[in-house]
Amino acid sequence: MITSNQNSKIKLVRALLGRSKERREAGAFIAEGVRLVEEAVKANWICRFALYDETLSERGMVQVESLKVRGVDVEEVSASVMKSISETETPQGILAVLELTNLPIPQPANFILIPDQVRDPGNLGTLLRSAAASDVQAVLLPPETTDAFAPKVLRSGMGAHFRLPIHSLGWDEIEKVIKSEGLNVLVADMNGQSCWETDLRQPVALIIGSEADGASESARKLANGNISIPMSGETESLNAGAAGSILMFEVLRQRAQKER
Amino acid sequence: MITSNQNSKIKLVRALLGRSKERREAGAFIAEGVRLVEEAVKANWICRFALYDETLSERGMVQVESLKVRGVDVEEVSASVMKSISETETPQGILAVLELTNLPIPQPANFILIPDQVRDPGNLGTLLRSAAASDVQAVLLPPETTDAFAPKVLRSGMGAHFRLPIHSLGWDEIEKVIKSEGLNVLVADMNGQSCWETDLRQPVALIIGSEADGASESARKLANGNISIPMSGETESLNAGAAGSILMFEVLRQRAQKER
Repeated sequence: MITSNQNSKIKLVRALLGRSKERREAGAFIAEGVRLVEEAVKANWICRFALYDETLSERGMVQVESLKVRGVDVEEVSASVMKSISETETPQGILAVLELTNLPIPQPANFILIPDQVRDPGNLGTLLRSAAASDVQAVLLPPETTDAFAPKVLRSGMGAHFRLPIHSLGWDEIEKVIKSEGLNVLVADMNGQSCWETDLRQPVALIIGSEADGASESARKLANGNISIPMSGETESLNAGAAGSILMFEVLRQRAQKER
Repeated sequence: MITSNQNSKIKLVRALLGRSKERREAGAFIAEGVRLVEEAVKANWICRFALYDETLSERGMVQVESLKVRGVDVEEVSASVMKSISETETPQGILAVLELTNLPIPQPANFILIPDQVRDPGNLGTLLRSAAASDVQAVLLPPETTDAFAPKVLRSGMGAHFRLPIHSLGWDEIEKVIKSEGLNVLVADMNGQSCWETDLRQPVALIIGSEADGASESARKLANGNISIPMSGETESLNAGAAGSILMFEVLRQRAQKER
């Protein structure tokens, strides 16, 4: 049992819960809590090692056994060490160190999401969660967007990370993907055409800008047009996670109607 | 200039930023930051007093002048006192103590939102912000839902509080409103009828449950039916703020189409 904060695994976990640079350099990230570890196991995600403590629930112990059966190194730590590394107020007694790999972008792609300059981790997680539920095939993250593998994004993503290809790319690489797939690039913008009047059944890349600054110059250069969510009253904008979710499900709605 | 943390106004502000009980007893709440104070002034909200410090921007000083013109007691505080009471990491140097009053519920009402057991302040704020933009006429908050006038809900509401009637009510009072308005009560539930197949053009009360537990027993008793957002893949649920926003804008979409 690991009882020291100076243990090398504990030091690695602490680093991986911190800055994105640490995650990139180590090529790993952390899934914390029963729900996220379950999703990782279900997706057969490559796991370097896992840690748990005596407070872990029965449901969590099932995951410990699943990981062991697959030959993953699973070690018990003291509850105080777990608490010292946990990101959450009420730690669930389990975390897994996972390989930072990407699921491949399906080809041909007909629905891609590009969260641009979205810096709030909760909003990015909400967008990923909605994307996984609305037939989005891949999420491309430009350089100015917050790291998708930060603990808070994983928590609010609720497992979307293990079902959805998420690629951090430069704008030149994003352009290549879009061109090769022949996607219609639409930027969410309050002055754009109503999303209800826009044909979203064709292959589309949807760019959701930040709440504070909207979409970046690079995003606008790539765009073929703007779409908006018609709003009533004096409200000028919506939460970025909510706005992106409304637009993604409008794409799903239009495509479901086409199929009838 | 107020320079002491023991000043009675400072003590009141600190209490009002805390528990909902303090806000109810004092009959007041706090709008912090330039944006929220602007919205309160624009809405002509009753203001007991306001505080600012030397770090306040020019845009903020315009609001200080507007408040003074209206006869509101506006006092300068030292930057260190402001920092000690501020809820945010980067205080904007202004806050207003506002009367805890309700805008009246319009009659007849044809679109009411009921966030049920929503405990995350960010999610509740997102719901209020989307409600103000989607022709929701009133928001009714059952006892188990988090206080709408907590600082974090105000921040993520982005001014919705000053445009939207928000009433905290018991379930019996909620039932009275619904019955007297003849509203069709629909609960968001993953096993419900597709929102795209449900006629939402008639007067409706939409209940959004908590992410963890769904809607309460009291909510289900009141309901005439369930509606769902059709989802693809293995995702079982969406963020409550996102789900509620998608449904509210589906109501707006159907009604806009009816009018054509």
